[in-house]
Amino acid sequence: MDYKTSGVDIDAGHEVVRRIKGLARSTFTPGVLSEIGSFGGLFRLEPGRFDDPVMVASADGVGTKLKVAFLANRHDTVGEDLVNHCVNDILVQGARPLFFLDYLATGRLAPDVAEQIVTGMARGCRANGCALLGGETAEMPGFYAEGEYDLAGFIVGAVDRARIINGSTLQAGDILIGLPSTGLHTNGYSLARRIVFDTLGLRVDSLVPGVGATIGEALLAVHRSYLPAIEPLLAEPGLVRGLAHITGGGITDNLPRIFPSGVGARIDRGAWEVPALFQFLGKAGQVPADDMYRSFNMGIGLIVACRPTDADRIMGMLKHESPRIIGELVAGERAVLYSA
Amino acid sequence: MDYKTSGVDIDAGHEVVRRIKGLARSTFTPGVLSEIGSFGGLFRLEPGRFDDPVMVASADGVGTKLKVAFLANRHDTVGEDLVNHCVNDILVQGARPLFFLDYLATGRLAPDVAEQIVTGMARGCRANGCALLGGETAEMPGFYAEGEYDLAGFIVGAVDRARIINGSTLQAGDILIGLPSTGLHTNGYSLARRIVFDTLGLRVDSLVPGVGATIGEALLAVHRSYLPAIEPLLAEPGLVRGLAHITGGGITDNLPRIFPSGVGARIDRGAWEVPALFQFLGKAGQVPADDMYRSFNMGIGLIVACRPTDADRIMGMLKHESPRIIGELVAGERAVLYSA
Repeated sequence: MDYKTSGVDIDAGHEVVRRIKGLARSTFTPGVLSEIGSFGGLFRLEPGRFDDPVMVASADGVGTKLKVAFLANRHDTVGEDLVNHCVNDILVQGARPLFFLDYLATGRLAPDVAEQIVTGMARGCRANGCALLGGETAEMPGFYAEGEYDLAGFIVGAVDRARIINGSTLQAGDILIGLPSTGLHTNGYSLARRIVFDTLGLRVDSLVPGVGATIGEALLAVHRSYLPAIEPLLAEPGLVRGLAHITGGGITDNLPRIFPSGVGARIDRGAWEVPALFQFLGKAGQVPADDMYRSFNMGIGLIVACRPTDADRIMGMLKHESPRIIGELVAGERAVLYSA
Repeated sequence: MDYKTSGVDIDAGHEVVRRIKGLARSTFTPGVLSEIGSFGGLFRLEPGRFDDPVMVASADGVGTKLKVAFLANRHDTVGEDLVNHCVNDILVQGARPLFFLDYLATGRLAPDVAEQIVTGMARGCRANGCALLGGETAEMPGFYAEGEYDLAGFIVGAVDRARIINGSTLQAGDILIGLPSTGLHTNGYSLARRIVFDTLGLRVDSLVPGVGATIGEALLAVHRSYLPAIEPLLAEPGLVRGLAHITGGGITDNLPRIFPSGVGARIDRGAWEVPALFQFLGKAGQVPADDMYRSFNMGIGLIVACRPTDADRIMGMLKHESPRIIGELVAGERAVLYSA
């Protein structure tokens, strides 16, 4: 008996590392001091780029959006979803991304699929100026169904200590500006899949009424990065008072995470048009509105909070991003109240 | 239909976060600036601790050692395995750990099991002076078998640029010192499980002949951290020329990762006694010796490379660690040659 007969193919592992190396190298920024394949990845923060740098780190997965990728046999977008999700999670504290690492686990390693996954990851890393510094590819016989895998990402960024955004200065009267999402991003897929595949019996290539795309295309739309939109705002210290990334739990659960005690939000549901995909899911699944806003981003992927006196200027700076004023902060419980 | 009927229990997720918070807080070092629950974890490197800090990052999993934990229904050690694995992977480049994040994915979230897992992780973090800065707990219906989960870890440490250990100064004649492992660590489990459970039909509570423990206990022995043993050596710049963590691929594949071109190793298999567990696995599985040394650590979990003139002193500094001189570097291919 040897390792291969036990279901682990060390040579396939080496082949994956070989294919990944070039993709990872394409993302390298001047801070990277190591090559892929060493035990740890080395990164040096450019001296002088930050006065008093604070590292901001986050871990995330793609969730069951992966199941849609399996059904569609399309593996080159989920890595980009993951990178952008991570980038947004540290952006909301004011951080610029520095480097990213991934964890890819599968029952039987398919070098072609792994290469597609990392291709998407590398694309996302390049677009965000983030180095793909390393990762782990694990072949785990008996853990995953044939052709399936799980994928997690870890990001580290940095922000000047004096410029950390944490919502602590938010107060009643502050304005909430929403930026559009590109789709479900990476949350709500267990519910969405249940509705479209189990209840409606749709196939991945069925057209979604009113959406102009197949269900596979609509559900795999890439989770966008808000870094390019928000970066200009961060150049002016204090302009942005709070940022919330709308992920699992929707606006309902995510927005209050940045509130100080005694501050809540009133959101006007009529302030933006909920995209057709969400309307379709809500109607087809007969999902109560409260559950919709706690399960999906409903078309708003990031919320910017600012002083009323800065709102016009920020709206102007975001004018190519289709921003919407969606509500304001109010005195009260750390929660979201919806109107309309 | 709502989120809970789709198999995702957001409230169970909140309950897990609540239980994890205290455990994570017990690991916090003075560098931590955030609380668990914010979008990203914040960490500030103590000014003056490093002259020219380089971050060293690594991602890892526990592999199919998890299957043994499932069989034994014991979940409070795999987190410690993971932390120590990660700590060792950056230690070999000379780095001290700063912070750690985890990714825990399961089909149905069991708050008790998640709490046990994080208890082990927190124990490992505290022992290594490493803050558990954040993580992601993902409930993914349909991805994992009932009662199963996957676990990945991500570590960031730092080393002074002038003190990075990368093996580049290694040369023929340098001495290789091995430090004992505590068991299989986190590699070789697919093969080991195949031998003990599939071929021999043992149960997790069967006694292993010559080992004095049940197979469950022997296979779940915690992957040790080499930080306490190696830290005193790092205090003297240049003393340690190379460090290799013996993980998947064994000595055969891991040791050459630190060699410059034109340098190989000769390892004397007779220089240390292979622990009974490995002997038992090799005999029971009729695994050829070459495969054993490429699948398992064979009792050596970390290898220190040094100048011949420093070997005695290092052996003295490691005297409570049962060090063994196991071989030397030779001119030749970047590979390991075994004798005896």
